[in-house]
Amino acid sequence: MTTLSKAPDWQVARWFNTEKPLTLAALRGKVVVLEAFQMLCPGCVSDGLPLAARIHETFGRNDVAVIGLHTVFEHHDAQTPTSLEAFLHEYRIGFPVGVDEVGEANGIPQTMAAYQMQGTPSLVLIDRHGHRRAQHFGHVPDLRLGAEIMALIVEPEPADQTAAGD
Amino acid sequence: MTTLSKAPDWQVARWFNTEKPLTLAALRGKVVVLEAFQMLCPGCVSDGLPLAARIHETFGRNDVAVIGLHTVFEHHDAQTPTSLEAFLHEYRIGFPVGVDEVGEANGIPQTMAAYQMQGTPSLVLIDRHGHRRAQHFGHVPDLRLGAEIMALIVEPEPADQTAAGD
Amino acid sequence: MTTLSKAPDWQVARWFNTEKPLTLAALRGKVVVLEAFQMLCPGCVSDGLPLAARIHETFGRNDVAVIGLHTVFEHHDAQTPTSLEAFLHEYRIGFPVGVDEVGEANGIPQTMAAYQMQGTPSLVLIDRHGHRRAQHFGHVPDLRLGAEIMALIVEPEPADQTAAGD
Amino acid sequence: MTTLSKAPDWQVARWFNTEKPLTLAALRGKVVVLEAFQMLCPGCVSDGLPLAARIHETFGRNDVAVIGLHTVFEHHDAQTPTSLEAFLHEYRIGFPVGVDEVGEANGIPQTMAAYQMQGTPSLVLIDRHGHRRAQHFGHVPDLRLGAEIMALIVEPEPADQTAAGD
Repeated sequence: MTTLSKAPDWQVARWFNTEKPLTLAALRGKVVVLEAFQMLCPGCVSDGLPLAARIHETFGRNDVAVIGLHTVFEHHDAQTPTSLEAFLHEYRIGFPVGVDEVGEANGIPQTMAAYQMQGTPSLVLIDRHGHRRAQHFGHVPDLRLGAEIMALIVEPEPADQTAAGD
Repeated sequence: MTTLSKAPDWQVARWFNTEKPLTLAALRGKVVVLEAFQMLCPGCVSDGLPLAARIHETFGRNDVAVIGLHTVFEHHDAQTPTSLEAFLHEYRIGFPVGVDEVGEANGIPQTMAAYQMQGTPSLVLIDRHGHRRAQHFGHVPDLRLGAEIMALIVEPEPADQTAAGD
Repeated sequence: MTTLSKAPDWQVARWFNTEKPLTLAALRGKVVVLEAFQMLCPGCVSDGLPLAARIHETFGRNDVAVIGLHTVFEHHDAQTPTSLEAFLHEYRIGFPVGVDEVGEANGIPQTMAAYQMQGTPSLVLIDRHGHRRAQHFGHVPDLRLGAEIMALIVEPEPADQTAAGD
Repeated sequence: MTTLSKAPDWQVARWFNTEKPLTLAALRGKVVVLEAFQMLCPGCVSDGLPLAARIHETFGRNDVAVIGLHTVFEHHDAQTPTSLEAFLHEYRIGFPVGVDEVGEANGIPQTMAAYQMQGTPSLVLIDRHGHRRAQHFGHVPDLRLGAEIMALIVEPEPADQTAAGD
């Protein structure tokens, strides 16, 4: 049997597009799509964020929560929360976006480190029970991702999953 | 309860890309994606057929069968099986394609009429039990279609579905 | 000095989208863009013909004449004039299109052979004096082609060009 | 006779991708393509800047000079030179880029005001004599722009142009 592991909690310094902070625990019961990006990463702008926006539009809000995470690991002075706020406005990003908390030494922010992301864009799928089920770095085809998300939406409540990896 | 209706059998004059004729009955147990097209329909060439090819590549052959159906309802002299054969070769269509059987009076071929398709491209989703579950005319976003197909792949075997609408 | 050579006359079996046959001689005074294609050539459908249509829309009819040439060198039974007529209708090709005259032995039609084209799509630029000035096989970027066409449009009437290569 | 007017000099606070400041006067003799943009303007990122980069690659450096101009008229705190530097690095912009000098009252920078630009992206064509010949706001098709640039490249030296509008 494959044991499933809980997705790490995220550490967010500041939120946009939401009135109050969002936690993985509070989203339990929904499939969570976590889109990690940097505002000056070309592949995030042309590919990752539009994909996240399509997911946000396609699936019901009760089934799927799309969360952006600004994981700045380079150009820290250029990609500040002030710049991010203007970016989100200009690109009309409507889903909640958190700013990943500054990390210790190497410039990698805390949540990005906890998830061991390889870079941006990275997309993480978390099931209704809070388990990390997939993590993609770079381009993900819509057809495949639509299938992966639906597989988690319709997943029956398995007794062994809720017990595993906690 | 929604009663589900059986997808109409298809009437095919000639097959390409398969050694023997394919029937819906023989595909029972798989999700069937039926892509109805005409070789000289621009939206089929730019949109519908590439989508069908992506489905063919993305999902396992044991789960999903992609079937093309050449539903010629105009330009009959131009879209002959001879022309279709060259078209399939040039566009490297790898999945099985049937030529819809000529219809009675109005130029609409038989399967297209039985499915009451509005035009081409039309995409039909048929579940593992042979029930028609969705039919789309025109563009379908990959993300949504990936989700719809996966919903049928993982569908549990319901006792009431097999009895309904037959 | 570069000597310029006259573009070969084209041999056309049948014309579409023009009331009377077109000859290079009759187009003298205009820049001629000759787009050689096959209706079942994917690169012609997705790239070459839309480019030719954009040229047709962008430049004045007194400056530039866009001429399609159906140079069938394979799948002769599939790409008949009957099929071509439906193709031109469905793809809304508005510029004149000639069917290249069947060739001698190897299936290469006569004009395609005279121009020594490597395949389809091929785009030939002919100046106001009837000299062939450029010939491209495959994709040509719009920016570069726009520049090449304009260079021929504004070309001053040089005394030596009219004398060379005839 | 159309009188041609000199393009306004640009006021630049800081340059990137050039060792020394660039002036219109020093570029006399070349066709100048001035691409005015903001780093957080989606249409600039997806459309205007890639077009400028294609122009930079397509035409000879002795014929055409491509100059970017960062005309920040909104989100001034977000689109600082520090952020711009990271942006130019990530998007691999290779041509010289100047930061338009802060304006007086309404947030419009000085060069943008002098050229009376309507917004970003704006593309200005300046001929070899320093006259402004075209100014486009928003999308410009490659084919048309290639033609416009070439028309200026090959333009004969007219006696009346150098005298007009100065």
